[in-house]
Amino acid sequence: MRAANLIAIDWGTSSFRAWAMTDDGTVVDEVSSPNGILAVPDGDFEGVFEAAVGAWLDANPDLPVIASGMITSRNGWCETPYLPLPVAAGNLARALRPFTTRKGRTIQFVTGAARNPETGLPDVIRGEETELVGHLAAGGSGQGLFVMPGTHSKWARAEGGALIDFETYMTGEIFAVLSKHSILGRLMAADAPPANDSFRRGVEVARNARSSITSTLFSARSLALFDRLAPTEIADYLSGLLIGEEVRSGVATHSGITEVTVVGRGDLADRFAMALDLFGVSVSKAEPGMARLGLLEIGKRAGLVST
Amino acid sequence: MRAANLIAIDWGTSSFRAWAMTDDGTVVDEVSSPNGILAVPDGDFEGVFEAAVGAWLDANPDLPVIASGMITSRNGWCETPYLPLPVAAGNLARALRPFTTRKGRTIQFVTGAARNPETGLPDVIRGEETELVGHLAAGGSGQGLFVMPGTHSKWARAEGGALIDFETYMTGEIFAVLSKHSILGRLMAADAPPANDSFRRGVEVARNARSSITSTLFSARSLALFDRLAPTEIADYLSGLLIGEEVRSGVATHSGITEVTVVGRGDLADRFAMALDLFGVSVSKAEPGMARLGLLEIGKRAGLVST
Repeated sequence: MRAANLIAIDWGTSSFRAWAMTDDGTVVDEVSSPNGILAVPDGDFEGVFEAAVGAWLDANPDLPVIASGMITSRNGWCETPYLPLPVAAGNLARALRPFTTRKGRTIQFVTGAARNPETGLPDVIRGEETELVGHLAAGGSGQGLFVMPGTHSKWARAEGGALIDFETYMTGEIFAVLSKHSILGRLMAADAPPANDSFRRGVEVARNARSSITSTLFSARSLALFDRLAPTEIADYLSGLLIGEEVRSGVATHSGITEVTVVGRGDLADRFAMALDLFGVSVSKAEPGMARLGLLEIGKRAGLVST
Repeated sequence: MRAANLIAIDWGTSSFRAWAMTDDGTVVDEVSSPNGILAVPDGDFEGVFEAAVGAWLDANPDLPVIASGMITSRNGWCETPYLPLPVAAGNLARALRPFTTRKGRTIQFVTGAARNPETGLPDVIRGEETELVGHLAAGGSGQGLFVMPGTHSKWARAEGGALIDFETYMTGEIFAVLSKHSILGRLMAADAPPANDSFRRGVEVARNARSSITSTLFSARSLALFDRLAPTEIADYLSGLLIGEEVRSGVATHSGITEVTVVGRGDLADRFAMALDLFGVSVSKAEPGMARLGLLEIGKRAGLVST
């Protein structure tokens, strides 16, 4: 087996993933854990870091380490300032922030990007810019509209190999807090099997709604009160309402859009594809593992590994 | 002092109010408590009822009792079916549901109303229909658009003295769950004094937004990250975003509307009036105590008290 040339870390809100890889992107070893930045015991980021990759570094102390994601946010380990748009592998590489741990390891942190930091409505991204760099480095035309589902979904537009604009939707988090803490969760059956029909029904309601989503959301209760939505269907219907609302708004904002690339995992990516299809938008799905390739590309531009 | 002819109870989600009153609406005695239906210890509705009005009934066992609000919902004491629209004092009186307590007291429960119970997107109302009856009985033209702020706001349209249509917005509850349980609450200062400028700023953002509220909500965090919104301003800004979104949608749904009546209490009613003003809608405020007058009117139509 070849020796690794780089340790790449994707450290998000709810998960931690690290890869030891060669300069051509071959994975030599990898580790993942649920220790996203909101699940780091006692705020001991270094403890999570050492438990995951300490042995790799003990064996090869000169291995460069590069990391991206919410780990550089205000609630993370090392807050870094946002870059203005557009951003691409080159300026992300120039903005790498070196950080030395108590044990003396150096981590190169990739920072995020901001839209309208000074005037207008701002928006921020941390982590997805690296995924997008990975996708663009892996091939494709270097342009297009990318939908990145998650706790906070991003709609990201690329042109000429750079991220030129993006928008955040709080879809995933709104779904979670309404399910757990609002009246809409009261009639929900726990552990219901996924119901795609109920999901599509929610998407259709969001698509055809005359009123705000803050009103149509209430139908997740009122339909159930009239036995027109089963307790086992409420969660999927609510998910359809919220993803449908995001897609409605995204399609309206990017007027004339006919195709998008969905970057994401399993069920959630499938649901976004289903919703986009109901809006007549054709979907291609991005290969997984984009953060890893993005970190490699940025690492190469920064001279951490040979090109 | 004159003797009471009726006990009227407004028993909502978060509060309980009862009045002993004469047949001309004069209040002889009254009591209120925070024992809304979600704050009834051990589900002992009868205990809350007896503690509040038991002494009045012991002194005068023949006093009729009428009650409205969420107490007749699925989570209440005595679930009653919804009436189809339109509803007015007359059909609410004919639909009164008598209920006998363990102690042998009889309560006449006013039921709620539903829009589209069988087809289309349904919506439900319990309590506000009685407030509206009270407002219409107290004078006015018997028609208009009424905005009733609360955990779940209602926009209610009256014609010919009847409630003919309405729509629910989950504004208050969404504000509460996002403040307490989402990332938007993280940077919020606790116990900040009310900031009307921040509220208006949120309303303006909602009014001018190109994207869904599920996206613009994120600006309550991103503005703060760039120190363009102070921790003490976040809650009011978020309130402005959500009330602004409700008013934007309400004004769009009721196209051509130029005046509304806001039915509600203190600060919240003031904020709705502020937001409506920013949309160019003229506002009149309804006198408080409408539920009491509505219950009296329905009681008279049902022959519980003389007319």
